[in-house]
Amino acid sequence: MANDEVILLGFWPSMFGMRPRIALEEKEVKYEYREEELMEANKSPLLLQMNPIHKKIPVLIHNGKPICESFIAVEYIDEVWKDKAPLLPSDPYDRAQARFWADYIDKKLYIPAKTIHITKGDEQEAATKEFIEVLKVLEGVLGDKAYFGGDNFGYLDIALIGFYCWFHTYETYGNFSIEAECPKIVAWGKRCMQMDSVAKILPDQQKVLKLAKVLRQIYGLE
Amino acid sequence: MANDEVILLGFWPSMFGMRPRIALEEKEVKYEYREEELMEANKSPLLLQMNPIHKKIPVLIHNGKPICESFIAVEYIDEVWKDKAPLLPSDPYDRAQARFWADYIDKKLYIPAKTIHITKGDEQEAATKEFIEVLKVLEGVLGDKAYFGGDNFGYLDIALIGFYCWFHTYETYGNFSIEAECPKIVAWGKRCMQMDSVAKILPDQQKVLKLAKVLRQIYGLE
Repeated sequence: MANDEVILLGFWPSMFGMRPRIALEEKEVKYEYREEELMEANKSPLLLQMNPIHKKIPVLIHNGKPICESFIAVEYIDEVWKDKAPLLPSDPYDRAQARFWADYIDKKLYIPAKTIHITKGDEQEAATKEFIEVLKVLEGVLGDKAYFGGDNFGYLDIALIGFYCWFHTYETYGNFSIEAECPKIVAWGKRCMQMDSVAKILPDQQKVLKLAKVLRQIYGLE
Repeated sequence: MANDEVILLGFWPSMFGMRPRIALEEKEVKYEYREEELMEANKSPLLLQMNPIHKKIPVLIHNGKPICESFIAVEYIDEVWKDKAPLLPSDPYDRAQARFWADYIDKKLYIPAKTIHITKGDEQEAATKEFIEVLKVLEGVLGDKAYFGGDNFGYLDIALIGFYCWFHTYETYGNFSIEAECPKIVAWGKRCMQMDSVAKILPDQQKVLKLAKVLRQIYGLE
């Protein structure tokens, strides 16, 4: 697969976009990254052509064929470049568990996380409370393991790590300390940041906070 | 795996519950089916113990270990009992496509489908329109193939077929003909009903309509 053409359409602060990028880095696949714009009206013709159904990043384009939805793209990457850095566990039950918790992150963590920084007052307070509850459940899943994948960084780590660069933003607007609530999760995030693949893709927490501030101004919250 | 204990917690009209049951039938796995109740308060202690996070069916319990979420259970079944009736395509790109459209069904078809029979007036009309649009997209994916899986019934067929036994209910309350809008989908549904696995699990369309009538009375719509 040395002559493969691999393109990834993403948007830098998106935790969904980070997932297949980290997977490609882990597999040491050469790819071209193309940044999309936030505004609906400015989406590239390539994005609209490759993901006409959802019109959303990330889109992985492998030899001209699109793979949409972040977890589907990560599984695809794991299946195609299977000789290096396996991401999903090999045991079917462990695979099912990894998929279950990845799905849980998108179903239960994403909305409260986002709500913390795009609202204020009671709505923001309720979202902060919910975010902490869900993160504590995930901390229980991590337990005393180094990674969600056990000794090795894997699928479920990729599923969650994109949120880590937003932690400072959540803390700033939710007025709480994630380290005080979920110390193991923060230690895990720092551990992941030691990895080249993660450090290369995750943006700086201050840069994310700056974007969040701009968004709050646009939404009329500041 | 002759001595495996396999239990499936389901609820007869649930298209989510039907998915792993059909997968087990396709694989000819012996399992015990346990019917759960609709009412939250009547959920079995086993369900609450096995799926404490979502407290929802379906739950596949394999040798005492739970696998929750319908698609995750179907993938698990396909991976564990891999020698018979493969459900997901073997090619990574085809697998990604099957996963993409399965996810599309849950994200885009389920809510409008449900809305048709639990609302009335403008909301019901808008849901009917949306349901037809989404089903037409899926008809385009089916094309002239016998099954979504091609010549053989597979993962994406399992993802969608549970809706087929609700078609009569959607038509009754949405006041339209699915066959007139999506003739290939209806032909596909009839074709699937010829299969023992599907015919055994899908309830009669009249029985589903009867339940929908009771639900509408409970919601005060009739």
